[in-house]
Amino acid sequence: MSYYQYHVFFCTNKREDGGRCCQDFNASGMRDYAKKRCKKLGIHEPGNVRINNAGCLNRCEEGPVIVVYPGEIWYTYVDREDIDEIIDSHLVNGKVVERLKI
Amino acid sequence: MSYYQYHVFFCTNKREDGGRCCQDFNASGMRDYAKKRCKKLGIHEPGNVRINNAGCLNRCEEGPVIVVYPGEIWYTYVDREDIDEIIDSHLVNGKVVERLKI
Repeated sequence: MSYYQYHVFFCTNKREDGGRCCQDFNASGMRDYAKKRCKKLGIHEPGNVRINNAGCLNRCEEGPVIVVYPGEIWYTYVDREDIDEIIDSHLVNGKVVERLKI
Repeated sequence: MSYYQYHVFFCTNKREDGGRCCQDFNASGMRDYAKKRCKKLGIHEPGNVRINNAGCLNRCEEGPVIVVYPGEIWYTYVDREDIDEIIDSHLVNGKVVERLKI
């Protein structure tokens, strides 16, 4: 049995060496936004979607990054509209957002 | 293409309401141990294994918990021997550790 239909991890790491990292792009804020929006849509619960923060996913140069399981789909994003599209297309309708894939 | 063959997330959340949570069981320390051991084994790299910390995975009462992707295999653990077994059996040899599954 699947505990989550979609399990989403936002890299919210802040590198200590000053190198490019996801947190430079407000990753925590964007994660909070995504979680809030999924809650509002009523999908942020067991059996459906879980939005988590995570430590460094090791793709700093391509960041900010998200990975969605199952499928190990990697995304990058710029703004809330990108997050909205990932939620609406992928998490609600099961359709991967090709333009944001990395 | 798969970026990680096995992507492992340790819940390292510390609940602020005082309720039972993974961090009560030294989750961060166990995650550090797992990462160090995978590095020592030479498997902690792109194309192979990634050990990450994550925020609350929402299975507090069953914790401490780990989830391994692909497959969404959930584990709990007590000590380093349990972590060793998950690494040696699942991450190195692809064999799920049934006794630790939740």
